[in-house]
Amino acid sequence: MDLYEAIYKRRDIRKFRPDPVPEDALGRILEAAHHAGSVGFMQPWNFILVRDLAVRGRVKASFEEHNRAAAELYEGGRRELYESLKLEGILESPLNICVTCDRRRGGTVLGRASILDTDLFSTCCAVQNLWLAARAEGVGVGWVSILDNAALTAALALPEGVVPLAYLCVGYPVEFPESPMLESVGWRGRLPLGDLVFRDRFGQR
Amino acid sequence: MDLYEAIYKRRDIRKFRPDPVPEDALGRILEAAHHAGSVGFMQPWNFILVRDLAVRGRVKASFEEHNRAAAELYEGGRRELYESLKLEGILESPLNICVTCDRRRGGTVLGRASILDTDLFSTCCAVQNLWLAARAEGVGVGWVSILDNAALTAALALPEGVVPLAYLCVGYPVEFPESPMLESVGWRGRLPLGDLVFRDRFGQR
Repeated sequence: MDLYEAIYKRRDIRKFRPDPVPEDALGRILEAAHHAGSVGFMQPWNFILVRDLAVRGRVKASFEEHNRAAAELYEGGRRELYESLKLEGILESPLNICVTCDRRRGGTVLGRASILDTDLFSTCCAVQNLWLAARAEGVGVGWVSILDNAALTAALALPEGVVPLAYLCVGYPVEFPESPMLESVGWRGRLPLGDLVFRDRFGQR
Repeated sequence: MDLYEAIYKRRDIRKFRPDPVPEDALGRILEAAHHAGSVGFMQPWNFILVRDLAVRGRVKASFEEHNRAAAELYEGGRRELYESLKLEGILESPLNICVTCDRRRGGTVLGRASILDTDLFSTCCAVQNLWLAARAEGVGVGWVSILDNAALTAALALPEGVVPLAYLCVGYPVEFPESPMLESVGWRGRLPLGDLVFRDRFGQR
């Protein structure tokens, strides 16, 4: 698939068909993620392929707890709309992938002495590669952020120094919608790019 | 360009030709960045196009200070190798882009209540889109991380609540090398993907 097509047709997917992602497609998706750049060539990521329904049940329980709390941040029609939204596909998708960042990998990492979080940023770049490669394979990805890092750490037995960066639901989608879901339900609109670009200093057009 | 080709041929570029990036290509690159997914459709990013050589000079001074300190983390041959590496192209590239994250944009952002840093992660996804789109346009990007966020904040007049996420050198490269520079000079090798993939729990093959 053309790069721009993958970028513009990528969506955050929450409704999945149950059929599994073939191993060869999954291999290409993970290899693409692994070929993101990383600070000092640190490659701080791991990919935990979560199929075990007991593990996923614990993650889903964390989602439900945090989602109830999040709903209370809104009132009236906004709250009704929030509660109507499907925000994850943890149990229905055939596969979850937790992308983690090992913050201690590789000792003194070149380029990381001044801004320590560049390892997290590198891992995000791997996630975006994964998301785009999945799109090119016809596979949907949904990033679940309504979660508790402590619960993920326990459910996935993460050792000290390894943090969960992205918890992804992965599988063939019911559809790739034309527009982002939050845009099509009227939650929030796309900002005009021109408003976001400045010259030489923040705020200068 | 094919997505996988862009992913595998993307490089962190430090040696640039001086010719400017045409406005239409730059527009496509920024639009691709803007079409990354973001938590709650927050779109927390701005793109500061830095051409002013006085601003870039201040950024370069910050790089030089931090690069001297970073060199001292290594000893012997490793230090000699470090000092021989070209790690930025701030003044030679025709354009720098600082991608920022406005941490207060959009009020109570859906999906961000539990993990506050998801806005930073979204901005990283935009950076990766930018990097890949640039590659497809034949344009090189180098991420400079040996910098001081306070110096960037001052040089770019960032208001409170806006953080510099990525400082990028942008332009046509002298070449897109076959391999990552840190690999080809023997600084660090690529990890085997198989070692990075686990099943259901961290450490489980």
